Amino acid sequence: MNADEFRQQGKALIDWVADYLETVESRPVTSSVQPGDVRAQLPEHPPTEAEPFAAVLADMDRVIVPGLTHWQHPNFFAFFPGNSSYASILGELASAGLGVQGMSWVTSPACTEVETLMMDWMVDLLGLPERFRSTSERGGGVIHGSASEATLASILAARWRVSNGSINRLGDTTHLVAYATSQAHSSIEKGLRIAGIGTEQLRIVAHDEQFAMRPDAFAEQVAADLAAGLTPFWVCCSRGTTSSMAFDPTAAIAPIAHEHGMWVHVDAAMSGIAALAPELRWVNDGLDQADSYCTNPHKWMGVVFDCDLFYTADRAALLGALSILPEYLRSKAAESGAAIDYRDWQIPLGRRFRALKLWFTIRTGGAIDAVDMIRHHVAATQTLADLVRADERFEVVAPHPLNLLCLALRAGDQATDSLIERANATGQALFTRTVLDGRVALRFSIGGRTTTEEHVRDGWALLESLA
Amino acid sequence: MNADEFRQQGKALIDWVADYLETVESRPVTSSVQPGDVRAQLPEHPPTEAEPFAAVLADMDRVIVPGLTHWQHPNFFAFFPGNSSYASILGELASAGLGVQGMSWVTSPACTEVETLMMDWMVDLLGLPERFRSTSERGGGVIHGSASEATLASILAARWRVSNGSINRLGDTTHLVAYATSQAHSSIEKGLRIAGIGTEQLRIVAHDEQFAMRPDAFAEQVAADLAAGLTPFWVCCSRGTTSSMAFDPTAAIAPIAHEHGMWVHVDAAMSGIAALAPELRWVNDGLDQADSYCTNPHKWMGVVFDCDLFYTADRAALLGALSILPEYLRSKAAESGAAIDYRDWQIPLGRRFRALKLWFTIRTGGAIDAVDMIRHHVAATQTLADLVRADERFEVVAPHPLNLLCLALRAGDQATDSLIERANATGQALFTRTVLDGRVALRFSIGGRTTTEEHVRDGWALLESLA
Repeated sequence: MNADEFRQQGKALIDWVADYLETVESRPVTSSVQPGDVRAQLPEHPPTEAEPFAAVLADMDRVIVPGLTHWQHPNFFAFFPGNSSYASILGELASAGLGVQGMSWVTSPACTEVETLMMDWMVDLLGLPERFRSTSERGGGVIHGSASEATLASILAARWRVSNGSINRLGDTTHLVAYATSQAHSSIEKGLRIAGIGTEQLRIVAHDEQFAMRPDAFAEQVAADLAAGLTPFWVCCSRGTTSSMAFDPTAAIAPIAHEHGMWVHVDAAMSGIAALAPELRWVNDGLDQADSYCTNPHKWMGVVFDCDLFYTADRAALLGALSILPEYLRSKAAESGAAIDYRDWQIPLGRRFRALKLWFTIRTGGAIDAVDMIRHHVAATQTLADLVRADERFEVVAPHPLNLLCLALRAGDQATDSLIERANATGQALFTRTVLDGRVALRFSIGGRTTTEEHVRDGWALLESLA
Repeated sequence: MNADEFRQQGKALIDWVADYLETVESRPVTSSVQPGDVRAQLPEHPPTEAEPFAAVLADMDRVIVPGLTHWQHPNFFAFFPGNSSYASILGELASAGLGVQGMSWVTSPACTEVETLMMDWMVDLLGLPERFRSTSERGGGVIHGSASEATLASILAARWRVSNGSINRLGDTTHLVAYATSQAHSSIEKGLRIAGIGTEQLRIVAHDEQFAMRPDAFAEQVAADLAAGLTPFWVCCSRGTTSSMAFDPTAAIAPIAHEHGMWVHVDAAMSGIAALAPELRWVNDGLDQADSYCTNPHKWMGVVFDCDLFYTADRAALLGALSILPEYLRSKAAESGAAIDYRDWQIPLGRRFRALKLWFTIRTGGAIDAVDMIRHHVAATQTLADLVRADERFEVVAPHPLNLLCLALRAGDQATDSLIERANATGQALFTRTVLDGRVALRFSIGGRTTTEEHVRDGWALLESLA
């Protein structure tokens, strides 16, 4: 493809994307394909001659779109929202077009500096503690691909700090113990495992009836581990758990953790973005005591995946854990300390210019739009809760301060499971299930960019009709 | 931004990208900004009102582009090539526009199935061993963001296998030992460190005068570690090292490694793509004995970053190391074994539809174009070597079978360093430096999509004039 074809086909693709997003509501939310169906429609071997781009675009309609789960559908109530605003799509296009690498400041200064600025803008927009700002004495932030990577980076920084850096040489993790509740995201266990900290070194701290960590249980477990000669080193406070959007009380947990030199990570991957709305800044409670924090504009803010904000109040520990400086990556700018080399803030070496999609989104009003959207979603969730409570066959099974409602049928787990399955089979909406303290629940997650109260009411009507 | 604005602004941005790529040669390869200059040109705080997209695009010209290192410039001879072909840019646009998550098959079947098919297509195109094909009994492949992540995944799979899975529970890495040469990429040490294997557990195996691992030295080191009661578990064969593009002899190393139950990882991040050209398939030598392998279409093949191909011949070990199955991610398709859930093949949970950019590139002839390009680059490198040898002030300091030439001034390290600095300061070309067995070398890396022999000759003329 040459530049002229790119101009022509690129514009056709822009229209194709706009058409897709404008008509996605008319499609079933999920695909009806079975495993292998998509592949069976495509050639088993690569073409030996170039095909026109129009043929590819035709296959996008014929094969790809019918094989998708439509995350941009307003009736997508599953997992978590994965919004791609128009401006952020253009940010990805610009990033791909420039094709620069941001591994070091010197490999593209603007890539690093816009990212640092965006991290600071988000401190403003979310009302985050000043200790996370890049201009603070010891803190700073970076864009990661996902909260999983942020969690892992946090674990590695904590592991480095508690070992005074010796972990980098000796790799002995056998005495380390980490803490989270059973409600914490799977990436916590996965991140620990990757870091050489086995599941037997992860303490599942008891939660209360609201699925939030019990500080008393945490304190007891830490004391027991200390008495056993182990080293408590990292605790995860989830602010908005995946299963039920529960909020661990960071302000009560952090002092206990810090008394024993532990690292406090706050995982607000889904819910932290709520803080764009000033009246919802309670999601940040206790954050001024956190050693690290993450939240995802690629969920509720409309910045297309991948865009996770990872902040730390102790960048020295993060850099200690992740810096490697071979000869072929040395530069004067970095060695003088004047510039940030983000490769030392993350797992991989290479990095895209991801800050562009955040910059495009914020500048074209995306953060302001997101505040409106968030308020509507929170209001719709409360309306939905009232509707559910009015139907005696159903029960609301967890607190719902934001945009997730967990509900169940009083008739039992089998009935709830069957309802989820039949509702999803209609293709009219998509829900996911979870298990809360042994009970099956339907997660009704309200966060789509185009999801209105009307869609929520229709989703509920579907559930009522099938119950 | 609404759909109509997106149509209009998106088309403007398509033209902007094409203009950028068509005129990038007229710019200096590097930016003249100093640390902080880019940020100083942008508002310190986010806007309180939406700005028109045209203002953003104007700032792309005013602030961003002058602050870039231009990886798409034909005189970019630094680091490694980072080509973004037109078709792959459109692949990123399509991926962002669809905004789907490919963490599980069920979260978007087409995202998973096209990826699996692309991994198999690349087996065809690169002539890789059949044991890496998804349809093989025990192997398969996945797209990672970077070779760093592939390396880490390989280490984790090896760690799992050598411990019979107990690593997931107990996290004891203290007896494990890994092997690589001093020429291996920094991501090897970083990946091991992340996995809880300290640098004192990484054996730097001696290399020969061609900077390739010495099998005899490897065998001796393994024997010594075994005698010391340690567990050799992982060896990295670099096929194309970053410093000098040296090739470790996999075929000689793998039998020694396998005799002791070790995992053999082949890192061909940069050079593996050469195998698109049948006469260069020697880069695959020994690969039929590898447990895992990675190479990067985002380097020499023109698929915009990020796109790393990671294959394993032992997917059970990979899945053993990385699978986590919380209630909210369960699905019938995966539990039946009929579908692949790629979240279990990688570090993060979330994943973009990265296969589209590979599919777009291959279908529109990108793999065929890449063969031509690779041949021209290899030829230009040999021509350059002749030119360097004809100037008695210079010396070629490493083998150069493909597209990297390492050269130095006979006058010594200071002279070579000064030459690199002065050449880069002209803005006419960009080179990076390395140190080979204590000697400073200039790396002349020839891999840009638009880089011709003419550009190479001009780059050499620049060096000659400044020497």
